[in-house]
Amino acid sequence: TVVASELRCQCLRTQERIDFQDIQSLKVTPPGPHCTQTEVIAILKDGQEVCLNPEASLVQRIIQKILKTVKSS
Amino acid sequence: TVVASELRCQCLRTQERIDFQDIQSLKVTPPGPHCTQTEVIAILKDGQEVCLNPEASLVQRIIQKILKTVKSS
Repeated sequence: TVVASELRCQCLRTQERIDFQDIQSLKVTPPGPHCTQTEVIAILKDGQEVCLNPEASLVQRIIQKILKTVKSS
Repeated sequence: TVVASELRCQCLRTQERIDFQDIQSLKVTPPGPHCTQTEVIAILKDGQEVCLNPEASLVQRIIQKILKTVKSS
């Protein structure tokens, strides 16, 4: 598993790319006492959790895309 | 509670502002079959979950801030 205890960094390794269609939600954790790195974890539609590299441009673009799909009501 | 079943929208109401220092992590969910709205849920350091308005400029700025605190290694 790539997700370890909540009391230390959860991402032991990260990947640079992911298919947007597979993502159910993204969890973004800023650095804190438990972990000095920003962590981005994608929860996939099949329930899997995948760590993403927050510095990867594709990852940054996916987050922008999610924020831009906000519906105007 | 503001968080309902995972099978429908989780945010019944959202707030426009939050103290960055209180945030442990953010969960961002794009629209899908269960919910037609983008949802942003902040998990606070005290364990509380708070729904944020993804259209609020402060919320967008907090997400940018988290992504920019990425440490260069």
